[in-house]
Amino acid sequence: MAIRYLTARLAQQIDEELMNAAGAFSIDQLMELAGLACAQTLSKVYDKKKYPRVLVCCGPGNQGGDGLVAARHLSQFGYQPKIYLPKPGSKDLYKRLQTQCANMGIPTVNDLPSALPSSDVILDAIFGFSFKPPVRAPFDTDLPLLSSSGLPILSVDIPSGWDVERGNAEKIGLNPDVLISLTAPKLGVKDFKGRHFLGGRFVSKRSEEKFNLNLPEYPGYEQIVELTTPMPDHEPELKL
Amino acid sequence: MAIRYLTARLAQQIDEELMNAAGAFSIDQLMELAGLACAQTLSKVYDKKKYPRVLVCCGPGNQGGDGLVAARHLSQFGYQPKIYLPKPGSKDLYKRLQTQCANMGIPTVNDLPSALPSSDVILDAIFGFSFKPPVRAPFDTDLPLLSSSGLPILSVDIPSGWDVERGNAEKIGLNPDVLISLTAPKLGVKDFKGRHFLGGRFVSKRSEEKFNLNLPEYPGYEQIVELTTPMPDHEPELKL
Repeated sequence: MAIRYLTARLAQQIDEELMNAAGAFSIDQLMELAGLACAQTLSKVYDKKKYPRVLVCCGPGNQGGDGLVAARHLSQFGYQPKIYLPKPGSKDLYKRLQTQCANMGIPTVNDLPSALPSSDVILDAIFGFSFKPPVRAPFDTDLPLLSSSGLPILSVDIPSGWDVERGNAEKIGLNPDVLISLTAPKLGVKDFKGRHFLGGRFVSKRSEEKFNLNLPEYPGYEQIVELTTPMPDHEPELKL
Repeated sequence: MAIRYLTARLAQQIDEELMNAAGAFSIDQLMELAGLACAQTLSKVYDKKKYPRVLVCCGPGNQGGDGLVAARHLSQFGYQPKIYLPKPGSKDLYKRLQTQCANMGIPTVNDLPSALPSSDVILDAIFGFSFKPPVRAPFDTDLPLLSSSGLPILSVDIPSGWDVERGNAEKIGLNPDVLISLTAPKLGVKDFKGRHFLGGRFVSKRSEEKFNLNLPEYPGYEQIVELTTPMPDHEPELKL
């Protein structure tokens, strides 16, 4: 059985199931594990000796929160992260995550063009699975800047600018080298050609079965697993 | 510089610094990372093929919460944990952690004598660094039962029944095979002879320096690090 690629609606449903009264997870818990998985994926692919300077680009929502958690863990791993968050989130958790980063001595940069030349790799945590086009300012100018920087990009869950179901059909999104899907991959990344990891090892067997996720087995106590090449788009035709 | 062993007062101070307004960590975040580190340590030492049945013994406080988080992660890792918590905590977080375990299909056992023969290893998350003797019911009878079971024991932070500074001086505590200290080891375990790990990779460099913790380097993106043999108790005498 192949892994299931989620529609926007299903991704939303699974998140709600995790966090409702029955699921009982707090957003603090889930974001901590998600952000840790993002940082570990970056660390697995981009060695800190060769790529020490990580530019963590955060949107205003939960995706940006994952980025802030990842920045903190990257700092613990010995990287030199910087945070670019032109539209900080207004939630209390978002602000606390910013404070935690500041306590780690992680700088915030305000000017993207001047930050790019002193970065080795980009962690893209701008838009998540609830993104709907068009891309609004300042991200409408930021995405092309990130794309043209020539730096390697690791995107969280869905590359920024992609539709969660139709992918980069409108050609306005980033083209990351690496992707970490959270909980389960989304429909829009089914044809993603780069290295593809999965994180968010907190879905119960019960939920996995309920939603037919067919998640792969994570190795040992790892919080991330690399997915093998996606299945071909079209099933072989049925012979009647 | 040797790692610093913490007094009860200092351990309390560091926890407060992490969670106060300036530190900005929520207990949900810290407990998630601490419990994950506990589960990873158990997984590192006790192979799930040989020791699948983990009896997670939880006290009513934050130590018990770490145990509940660990039980959930152990279930994700493919172990078959059971929870023994004769005095469940009353905090909302504690209850949510219990629900998360129930959602994973992790059973709770009520009778320790009958649970022990069907267990392969014990995760001791009963008492933490705020424990003060005497051991009260039902743990006064539980600790001797755990000790005499002959099962391997992994203790969290401080073996249950030990004084955080004086160790097992009163001989009423468990004698674990493995210990995972959280944040930094406590004074009472300075002479611990078993395998000793450290978890809680969330202390900022700033706090580490402020409290002279001299923490070891964690490898790569790991959340745990094995400590080498503790330093001898007595410094060489100063020659005047």
